[in-house]
Amino acid sequence: MMDAVKELAYALDTFYFLMSGVLVMWMAAGFSMLEAGLVRAKNTAEILTKNIALYAIASIMYMLVGYNIMYGDGINSVIPGLSFLLGGDNATEAVLAGGEDAPYYSNMSDFFFQVVFVATAMSIVSGAVAERMKLWTFLAFAVVMTGFIYPVQGFWKWGGGFLDGLGFLDFAGSGVVHLTGAAAALAGVLLLGARRGKYGEHGEVNAIPGANLPLATLGTFILWMGWFGFNGGSELMLSNVAEANAVSMIFVNTNMAAAGGVVVALVAARLLFGKADLTMALNGALAGLVAITAEPLTPGALAATFIGSIGGVLVVLSIVTLDKLKIDDPVGAISVHGVVGLWGLLAVPLTNADASIGSQLIGAGTIFVWVFGASFVVWLILKAVMGIRVSEEDEYTGVDFSECGLEAYPEFSPGK
Amino acid sequence: MMDAVKELAYALDTFYFLMSGVLVMWMAAGFSMLEAGLVRAKNTAEILTKNIALYAIASIMYMLVGYNIMYGDGINSVIPGLSFLLGGDNATEAVLAGGEDAPYYSNMSDFFFQVVFVATAMSIVSGAVAERMKLWTFLAFAVVMTGFIYPVQGFWKWGGGFLDGLGFLDFAGSGVVHLTGAAAALAGVLLLGARRGKYGEHGEVNAIPGANLPLATLGTFILWMGWFGFNGGSELMLSNVAEANAVSMIFVNTNMAAAGGVVVALVAARLLFGKADLTMALNGALAGLVAITAEPLTPGALAATFIGSIGGVLVVLSIVTLDKLKIDDPVGAISVHGVVGLWGLLAVPLTNADASIGSQLIGAGTIFVWVFGASFVVWLILKAVMGIRVSEEDEYTGVDFSECGLEAYPEFSPGK
Amino acid sequence: MMDAVKELAYALDTFYFLMSGVLVMWMAAGFSMLEAGLVRAKNTAEILTKNIALYAIASIMYMLVGYNIMYGDGINSVIPGLSFLLGGDNATEAVLAGGEDAPYYSNMSDFFFQVVFVATAMSIVSGAVAERMKLWTFLAFAVVMTGFIYPVQGFWKWGGGFLDGLGFLDFAGSGVVHLTGAAAALAGVLLLGARRGKYGEHGEVNAIPGANLPLATLGTFILWMGWFGFNGGSELMLSNVAEANAVSMIFVNTNMAAAGGVVVALVAARLLFGKADLTMALNGALAGLVAITAEPLTPGALAATFIGSIGGVLVVLSIVTLDKLKIDDPVGAISVHGVVGLWGLLAVPLTNADASIGSQLIGAGTIFVWVFGASFVVWLILKAVMGIRVSEEDEYTGVDFSECGLEAYPEFSPGK
Repeated sequence: MMDAVKELAYALDTFYFLMSGVLVMWMAAGFSMLEAGLVRAKNTAEILTKNIALYAIASIMYMLVGYNIMYGDGINSVIPGLSFLLGGDNATEAVLAGGEDAPYYSNMSDFFFQVVFVATAMSIVSGAVAERMKLWTFLAFAVVMTGFIYPVQGFWKWGGGFLDGLGFLDFAGSGVVHLTGAAAALAGVLLLGARRGKYGEHGEVNAIPGANLPLATLGTFILWMGWFGFNGGSELMLSNVAEANAVSMIFVNTNMAAAGGVVVALVAARLLFGKADLTMALNGALAGLVAITAEPLTPGALAATFIGSIGGVLVVLSIVTLDKLKIDDPVGAISVHGVVGLWGLLAVPLTNADASIGSQLIGAGTIFVWVFGASFVVWLILKAVMGIRVSEEDEYTGVDFSECGLEAYPEFSPGK
Repeated sequence: MMDAVKELAYALDTFYFLMSGVLVMWMAAGFSMLEAGLVRAKNTAEILTKNIALYAIASIMYMLVGYNIMYGDGINSVIPGLSFLLGGDNATEAVLAGGEDAPYYSNMSDFFFQVVFVATAMSIVSGAVAERMKLWTFLAFAVVMTGFIYPVQGFWKWGGGFLDGLGFLDFAGSGVVHLTGAAAALAGVLLLGARRGKYGEHGEVNAIPGANLPLATLGTFILWMGWFGFNGGSELMLSNVAEANAVSMIFVNTNMAAAGGVVVALVAARLLFGKADLTMALNGALAGLVAITAEPLTPGALAATFIGSIGGVLVVLSIVTLDKLKIDDPVGAISVHGVVGLWGLLAVPLTNADASIGSQLIGAGTIFVWVFGASFVVWLILKAVMGIRVSEEDEYTGVDFSECGLEAYPEFSPGK
Repeated sequence: MMDAVKELAYALDTFYFLMSGVLVMWMAAGFSMLEAGLVRAKNTAEILTKNIALYAIASIMYMLVGYNIMYGDGINSVIPGLSFLLGGDNATEAVLAGGEDAPYYSNMSDFFFQVVFVATAMSIVSGAVAERMKLWTFLAFAVVMTGFIYPVQGFWKWGGGFLDGLGFLDFAGSGVVHLTGAAAALAGVLLLGARRGKYGEHGEVNAIPGANLPLATLGTFILWMGWFGFNGGSELMLSNVAEANAVSMIFVNTNMAAAGGVVVALVAARLLFGKADLTMALNGALAGLVAITAEPLTPGALAATFIGSIGGVLVVLSIVTLDKLKIDDPVGAISVHGVVGLWGLLAVPLTNADASIGSQLIGAGTIFVWVFGASFVVWLILKAVMGIRVSEEDEYTGVDFSECGLEAYPEFSPGK
């Protein structure tokens, strides 16, 4: 009888984990649509190819090595346990035997939830390097990033490594996922250089508008939806009153932070540019979501709105500033996930007494230095071996034709 | 032991509520895509901006005042309880202490579910006033609508106010949500007037086709999907056999009503216009969904199909009729949510013996008079203060350029 | 007390079933977007109309007759039980009375889950016959297919008929759903003939590129997401440790098979055509998903990746081969769902000792012969009665205009 109740709780927590994982998996579609909407028509099929391929690569590499690095015995256990690969790591007996350490949800549901997080981090990179990077170089980077670079820093925090020991707090990954993605993206962008025509000889910043804003808006809504799984699932348990309340609070805060980000970014755009810039509203929503991700539980709804709102200002200012620095990020990924990810980490002490600015800075700094450094080295090697940037001609014609051999909108493209 | 079972039921009902809320939140994307697909290319970015901004505004205003008006002490309690805003209203003790009135799911999950409903009502308005209303005027209206007009009538029914006392039945909101949205939209449309060129001097009705029908279809499917949360979640409980059966019946009926609406609207379009008009099929699906929303539980699957089918006829006839009356509603929102919302309310007595035509008419009439009247006054004030309609030139060029400073499809627009 | 636990398990299993059903319903949007993206602009509105209408028809026909054929008393019980149609088949008493055969989830949730499967099978057909079939002929076929052809073979396996008795294994429907859809499609395609201009006089195969690849990619992601419900829900139970583990394993395997399909199809396209063909990557994902559907539980994650990978190769080879045979399938549905569906069935013995190649071949053969044969007869009758192919002029102008009287992209179409 007691066993029946325990089994039911196990089933509910597993189901909650699986549904959260499905929502995070759906974010892969969100990034695809967002990025496809914000690039030019001639580079759209290629970025779609990148996005579906990186998700597949992330799934495979994380299964083969990443998951064991991050949640096995750390960086020394690069070879994954065969039991996991062969499907045996899903035992029932341990649950009923009980004890403090007995699993209270399926190991496989845990893998599923974790694997979609890696894909999220990698998705962040694809937008920033869009419209000029070689496809296969990008995919080669994805292999290393999802199999090694991401899992190592993930182990440091979520796998119980030294950042966790230092008291660094990052509930659902403003640092582990978002800052990580942005740091890898920044390394790539610096090596790649800006798109041709983006910055003029006399310091002008030329707007290169995205070809399909409904797609970008759809992508943002998908990401907003998926984020309920991203943050809500990161509570890791739901099956009693206190946990169910916690998950509910996280859903409310996630929604409020995004709402705050939209309103403030839209007003900021109106004040700065004189117009209600849709792309800033979209980035404001995403900024609000990234900002609350480091701590979606302890704030009240009003504080969550505030934390998201600051994210909404920061993302607008950051996008403008990066353009002044001639760091060309076609979709604003470095601003949304990097700058605002940092803000999210630093905002944790505002509502969570267990956090300190010091350990948050150490955590953010460690993640940035590791991911940026390791990525820079990998990008450099790839540049030497495969080349990193498409030819001037291919960039002019569009990478859809040169890399994928087709067009995203063959009947509508202006060239026709 | 008993407590463990009770806690598990609490967790399951909360989770069911949260998942339903996510599905309803997703409807915001559905309305965005539907409306973006049904307007012209030059007005697409602006309607996307409206949609994401109204969702954000609805979330914030409902948190600040609306939720407390609707579920607090009614219209006298405009100032929200601080405990809610600060996140304290999520206590565990009351649950275990038990008693008849003990909460059986998280308060915060209730707020989340309710807040996405307000956004739905507001989304209905944006389509009807598309292509000619000033953006910031619309957003100002959204503030009053989601913070005050909607919650007041919501309190009358779902908050335990006088309409509830009179025996007015509206399970998931054919009236409280859909008729409300349509009534506010109608007030705006009457003050705005028709789009230039829609109605000719000699009584012609000129078709102004939507620019992107795949988007509109996607939006309809999203709404159909989200409606399972909208109606299914409105049962408010799932954790025992009778409730699980009830929720399942609601899912089936919701699906069947939409299916009936599609088939009948498509056949009606074929008979009336000689063609299988896709936009009528889409509106038929939505009409079926709106029609069943007032009572998705008591009909059998066959009766639900019938109720939805009548919705499918009504929406086609209503769209044609409104055009004859020169009431210009670019997406058919007033027909789908208003005319069919009324049908849904009046259909309740067909399958639910607790309902009467009298109380349904009183409920529908009260909601319409309040929302239409209050909205009309607010639109009038906004017209005087900010202006309500864009200039003739801006309407010609498109509001994307004048309001948002960008284009939705910069490479494809015919002007290029 | 025991009853409370039992009721909770019933509620959880029902909820899991309903959420799975919502995910599968969502696949209707996936097929719509995939097919709308892969046809030409001038045929887009019509294929959207087909997709929403077929979903509605499937829902109605399966309610009226199909469900009772498949899960009632087989093909002899064509007249459905009135209790089901009138909503009475949802009793609480039987559950608590208990016993081995007591339902452990809501009958209505079962109907909901099953009805979305029928729609999936029918969706497969619409893509293959795109751009040249008459709309109302297609819809008439949908009536017979979803009300009769599909349910009969479904009864043979899942309803407990003779294929089930023979030991034929098909967990979630590589055969019952996917091969079935493909067999019906093949019959239609053979009778229809190829699109004009697809095959040249001297054996050339002319590419007819899809008009909107972001839509096709979105559709693929939607299908991938929905497949977690498709395969995960087919375990039919979640409420204890062993079942929760099983469902989790299915989620992981479903994801891994799709990932394997993407990578291998992309590499195959690179080797065969010299380019990273996005449409092949999309078909690779779907092929991986179809391949694992016959047995998503017994493989480990590595074996699932392998099974999906083989699907990824097969789909590329099959698409090329069908074109050589002048079998014109605009979206590759016959390759994805038919050829790879067969592979999925034959792969079951690799990891499941209860399966044999013999019974898998008998099952696949029976399904193919029945569905292809019955469909061919129905298509033939429809050809005689209504005509099956649009006129040469309508095909040239596009079926959007001739069948639906509107354009999908009126402002962007090249004709403008």
